[in-house]
Amino acid sequence: MAPILLNSMGNEHNGYIEQEKVYVKNPHLDSMEEDILYHFNLSTKTHNLPEMFGDIKFVCVGGSANRMKAFAQFIHQELNLQGNVDDIRDICEGTDRYSMYKVGPVLSISHGMGVPSISIMLHELIKLLDHARCRDVNLFRIGTSGGVGLAPGTVVITDKAVDSFFRPQFEQVVLGKVIVRSTELDEELARDLLQCSAEIPNLPTVIGNTMCTHDFYEGQGRLDGALCSFSTEEKLEYLRKAHEAGVRNIEMESTVFAAMCRVCNLKGNATSSCQGPTHRHPRVLQHRQDLPKPYNHTPNAVTLQ
Amino acid sequence: MAPILLNSMGNEHNGYIEQEKVYVKNPHLDSMEEDILYHFNLSTKTHNLPEMFGDIKFVCVGGSANRMKAFAQFIHQELNLQGNVDDIRDICEGTDRYSMYKVGPVLSISHGMGVPSISIMLHELIKLLDHARCRDVNLFRIGTSGGVGLAPGTVVITDKAVDSFFRPQFEQVVLGKVIVRSTELDEELARDLLQCSAEIPNLPTVIGNTMCTHDFYEGQGRLDGALCSFSTEEKLEYLRKAHEAGVRNIEMESTVFAAMCRVCNLKGNATSSCQGPTHRHPRVLQHRQDLPKPYNHTPNAVTLQ
Repeated sequence: MAPILLNSMGNEHNGYIEQEKVYVKNPHLDSMEEDILYHFNLSTKTHNLPEMFGDIKFVCVGGSANRMKAFAQFIHQELNLQGNVDDIRDICEGTDRYSMYKVGPVLSISHGMGVPSISIMLHELIKLLDHARCRDVNLFRIGTSGGVGLAPGTVVITDKAVDSFFRPQFEQVVLGKVIVRSTELDEELARDLLQCSAEIPNLPTVIGNTMCTHDFYEGQGRLDGALCSFSTEEKLEYLRKAHEAGVRNIEMESTVFAAMCRVCNLKGNATSSCQGPTHRHPRVLQHRQDLPKPYNHTPNAVTLQ
Repeated sequence: MAPILLNSMGNEHNGYIEQEKVYVKNPHLDSMEEDILYHFNLSTKTHNLPEMFGDIKFVCVGGSANRMKAFAQFIHQELNLQGNVDDIRDICEGTDRYSMYKVGPVLSISHGMGVPSISIMLHELIKLLDHARCRDVNLFRIGTSGGVGLAPGTVVITDKAVDSFFRPQFEQVVLGKVIVRSTELDEELARDLLQCSAEIPNLPTVIGNTMCTHDFYEGQGRLDGALCSFSTEEKLEYLRKAHEAGVRNIEMESTVFAAMCRVCNLKGNATSSCQGPTHRHPRVLQHRQDLPKPYNHTPNAVTLQ
């Protein structure tokens, strides 16, 4: 691979260094005449993907379409880009599966809730980055999560994503066979993010394990689902064990996010603000405005740094 | 439970019969002062749920918010209800997690993609129906799926939902322990739906098993994901085995849908139109308008009958 000049997005490296390609791992793609990114409503035949996305260096993904639009507008202002912030267009407006906004070298995409939903998005995003010949891309999941032993508003930078049994792995079923993939994230990127957060006043931030469940109610020990067969004590005991295993927050996407980053050579991190600590308070907070002031923008701010 | 008069929505039963309650299975709910249906942006304190939803008899759910709005408008016209079809309001407009439309006794809700996403919606829907004191409710998942050995446009009425190993079960992780739940659906309702479909001309319909995967690409044997480690032959061999096991279509929500219907005493079915048969054609069809004409409305029509 020929060394090429790094982008000018505040990267500390100087001069020419080897950049890293995003890898798809699918030999069938080479023989396809057209690749349709179905859930983005984009295709290699109908869109010039290198022209549209070739300069992308940061991809930020989060569950809610509204929040990812607001994030794109926030980035637009922070980067002092030209044009009206209200004119930022949803690139995926032809479908309601995901929303996607491009602001300079930053792509902001919604992924819905849960592993299957983010997984579809990641497959198509990774193909998009590959088709657009992007290099040296960092991928961040920014969102909210339930804290374990942390004050609300604390930011958790994910060390490892772990499953409901506290194992740093993701089980992918392929044609009826279980394949186990590692969910360890890039350590250097996690340290960089921690360093960034230290430069922002009053922003409690930790590096810890993020537990990914496939269910919001029974899976995360909530007492207020339609189904609940356990006691408060059993719930607290489970969360105590999770804390002992290094878990600092719980959400629903990090294992497949980490696994796919690793397989496809993407540097990534899942950086979440904690809502009400799950182990003390059985409910999520209803109104985000109830949270401490800097709460809503903390992962954005850390990512931006 | 006192016998009460059945609703007048074309049910064949005459006179007084015992109606069936939707059951939440959570003793903690009784002691809660307020129940916040967080992802619907509704609450028992801020909304009069019995007044808003007490007459609901049919709940239809599907992945896409746009499609569930179109379905609500379709039902509004079919039932000849008063008012402008364009004025139907999204009851969940305060959040972008789900969309919800009420049209007479029919509730139309979007659930996003995948088991975790529909599971959150089902927990909150079942609590909503319980709070609203609804009885005798039928729940339908209407959507699209990949056909196995079927022509595009064929409607599959689900007999049993099965997992990627063709087992009629759903594994729910509760506080780190695996609980196995049955995914058999109400047989009488499936037969009723088949009968309804027979009354619609040119509507190929079968009852079969619906396989639910947690992944759209590797999990369903697609050759065009960012990752693919199998050959065309291996994919076809897996789909052949699925067909032998009675699988007629593949989607991403039916196991948890069936399991929760069963546990909570809801009669339900997952009724899907098949897109391009997965075992012949490696891709989904990009444009729904490419499909046979009656395709888009077939599950709607069957459900409506």
